[in-house]
Amino acid sequence: MPIKRLLIANRGEIAVRIIRAARELGIETVQVHSAADADSRAVQLADRAIDIGPPQAAKSYLNVDAILEAARSAGADAIHPGYGFLAENADFADAVVAAGMAFVGPSGDTIRLMGDKAAARRQAQQAGVPTVPGSDGVIEDMDAAKALAVDLGFPVMIKAAAGGGGRGIRIAHSADEFATLAPQASSEALAAFGDGGIYVEKVIERARHIEVQVLGDGTDVVHCYERECSLQRRRQKVWEEAPSVALKPEVREGLCTSAVALAKSVGYSGAGTIEYLYDDATGDYYFIEMNTRIQVEHPVTEMICGVDLVAEMIRIAGGEKLRLAQAGLRASGHAIEVRLNAEDPANNFMPFPGQIAELTLPDGPGVRFDHMLYRGYQIPPFYDSLLGKLIVWGEDREHAMARLGRALGELSVTGLPTTAPLFQALLASDDVRASAVHTRWLEPWLEENQHMIMDRGGAAA
Amino acid sequence: MPIKRLLIANRGEIAVRIIRAARELGIETVQVHSAADADSRAVQLADRAIDIGPPQAAKSYLNVDAILEAARSAGADAIHPGYGFLAENADFADAVVAAGMAFVGPSGDTIRLMGDKAAARRQAQQAGVPTVPGSDGVIEDMDAAKALAVDLGFPVMIKAAAGGGGRGIRIAHSADEFATLAPQASSEALAAFGDGGIYVEKVIERARHIEVQVLGDGTDVVHCYERECSLQRRRQKVWEEAPSVALKPEVREGLCTSAVALAKSVGYSGAGTIEYLYDDATGDYYFIEMNTRIQVEHPVTEMICGVDLVAEMIRIAGGEKLRLAQAGLRASGHAIEVRLNAEDPANNFMPFPGQIAELTLPDGPGVRFDHMLYRGYQIPPFYDSLLGKLIVWGEDREHAMARLGRALGELSVTGLPTTAPLFQALLASDDVRASAVHTRWLEPWLEENQHMIMDRGGAAA
Repeated sequence: MPIKRLLIANRGEIAVRIIRAARELGIETVQVHSAADADSRAVQLADRAIDIGPPQAAKSYLNVDAILEAARSAGADAIHPGYGFLAENADFADAVVAAGMAFVGPSGDTIRLMGDKAAARRQAQQAGVPTVPGSDGVIEDMDAAKALAVDLGFPVMIKAAAGGGGRGIRIAHSADEFATLAPQASSEALAAFGDGGIYVEKVIERARHIEVQVLGDGTDVVHCYERECSLQRRRQKVWEEAPSVALKPEVREGLCTSAVALAKSVGYSGAGTIEYLYDDATGDYYFIEMNTRIQVEHPVTEMICGVDLVAEMIRIAGGEKLRLAQAGLRASGHAIEVRLNAEDPANNFMPFPGQIAELTLPDGPGVRFDHMLYRGYQIPPFYDSLLGKLIVWGEDREHAMARLGRALGELSVTGLPTTAPLFQALLASDDVRASAVHTRWLEPWLEENQHMIMDRGGAAA
Repeated sequence: MPIKRLLIANRGEIAVRIIRAARELGIETVQVHSAADADSRAVQLADRAIDIGPPQAAKSYLNVDAILEAARSAGADAIHPGYGFLAENADFADAVVAAGMAFVGPSGDTIRLMGDKAAARRQAQQAGVPTVPGSDGVIEDMDAAKALAVDLGFPVMIKAAAGGGGRGIRIAHSADEFATLAPQASSEALAAFGDGGIYVEKVIERARHIEVQVLGDGTDVVHCYERECSLQRRRQKVWEEAPSVALKPEVREGLCTSAVALAKSVGYSGAGTIEYLYDDATGDYYFIEMNTRIQVEHPVTEMICGVDLVAEMIRIAGGEKLRLAQAGLRASGHAIEVRLNAEDPANNFMPFPGQIAELTLPDGPGVRFDHMLYRGYQIPPFYDSLLGKLIVWGEDREHAMARLGRALGELSVTGLPTTAPLFQALLASDDVRASAVHTRWLEPWLEENQHMIMDRGGAAA
């Protein structure tokens, strides 16, 4: 049944993004918000706003009862979870459906399956998708695990089965280190996720992070090509591109076909992302995990494919079949997204929630800025530091880089430091210009180039 | 020779647009400005700004000597004229070249030829392009002209050969009216353009305005499909689209092929637009004129073709051959542009140069806003009332219309009235939704719907 009134169970730029898609589809929007977000841009833009609790996320954006009650009282017939918060909480997805509403995303069972990293790995293997050499499922016996680690060859990665966002991960460079770190990782996972299960994977040195966007309607699945997100700091992506210039056409074809096969194997419904590590040296790729939600970096895919992923996932949740055929999905040009965070690059990227004094936005051809900002806006200190995402499209990567530089030159946010100077510095890097990067490239580069970022205005404005 | 330093002999949003293209090409920018534009966005964005005279355009933006002197003193190697002002002044183009610089546009001779409406009409006929039935060249004998008008059938249009922008035009509905109006039109043309030459054309009732974008390098010419600009008020376009949904594929092919033939016949170099009237009733199209410059509405073409027209014209002026092959130029989706003017729609669109109090810009997928605004900006009263152009792209026309409505809802300019409420009202019009419009549709509709536009906030904020 087509959705008529959509509740947005999120905040920040993604809430604004979802409101835009809904509005273009003629769907009413209900924005829930914490007390700290009463004056947010999403609240201003939505048709209706409902206060669901105190600033702490556990009492508002993670408060399932309050959100369901808001949805009932507003007469919403669907809930979009965005990313983060409850987006990959299978019980929440089930509760939404049990309450008679549509959940904009896959079924609770699919979220549960893919949220269990070891089960997802088995699922990928069954679908014929290469996985990183490692343990078959969750490790029960620490001795057997250590023997496997020796077999794989160090360094190895110890990962929490229930983890995400880079938490619960350790890297062991020797058998001794493994014996120390594996129990630590398990305890941390138990504390953080209520599940101490861990598994072991070989570390792919100098790997690129490549991910494939898929859309499914429960039966059919299409892919919208890949994104490369190799520039990461503390396992958080800071700069994303589409397509990856590192892939040969046959590798791209393999990655995308694998992703569709995996999504089809679980009857995937909605927008999802299959993440891979790609080894430049060998041309091999390995499944790492699937994110069963819209991702922060989805706009780069939208810009090369001319597809509105958020609108498509809403249509699918409303019962429509996929409108896109694989043959009609062509990628054109190159897109880059950079994450503008309220952090001080001159002070080890310390979060800096302040007030927006003045704001000048970039615009013109090929520029999109998905953000939550307005003049005078006081960034609440309770949530992540993402202020917005500057996305550019160009006819090729060189053009997109030139356009990114131009757009960053137009962007001005005063009143608090942001990560903008980092991107001007990255644009000047030979490695970035040549795309000679991998997931561990950025951190040492930041150590070495701190002075350059500070020169570019990293200090508080 | 590639251009290194470009002088922009214009102002407003098009100056900002040109600076953006130049910057992405790695070209330095020199912005000339009148005393009234010292705090304009273009001046803020350019690498260097030079004051060339008092606010009156005749003493600054039309002051050839001052502009050439600024170019020499700044060491510019090229001049971009934008649109309006000196953009179609053949003597200026010649003077730029004589001063040893590149003119970003066609040769003075091409401008001169196409600027003479009667000569352009002959050129079109020679290139096999259909023209509106009418006089062969400039009318010398008023009696013969009257006889021709009777032959064509009334109403007929009397046009100044040297005219432009809708000036010097009369419509005669009878032989008697013709006898009165033709000498009037000639006198007005003489006074306005220093040339009293007129010609006569049959009036195509309920015609659509369709124009084809071409790019040439002096040898090769490609087209970037058409735009439809049928929504006009006082012969000024207010809403433009690409593609035109009125055209069957074979008509589009004919129009575009004709445009390329005409541009090739004059060895066209740069970006140009061939304007046609299209008769829905018969499927016939008629050449009306060629604009030998970038047009206000160029972004809708950029959004469906993924081409940066301003960058291409700069490259060509720098001596590059065309980088685009016709076979590689595909149009995808639908784009709409609306012109945000500092005018009061509730008061007969009276220009209203005021100060921008607060400004909230639309953003997100498929939205581009080419503008000259910032908070606190005082619009100078000396120039046209265009503040910016809101451009949206959608997968089809319906999607683009929904997106336009969404983007207009996000746009907020306070401190002065703008034409934004007009577009919200037009979006609600059945005729506009069905594209059942022609060049004389808007004015009577405005008469009838004045109340609706006022209800939507047309009064001064």
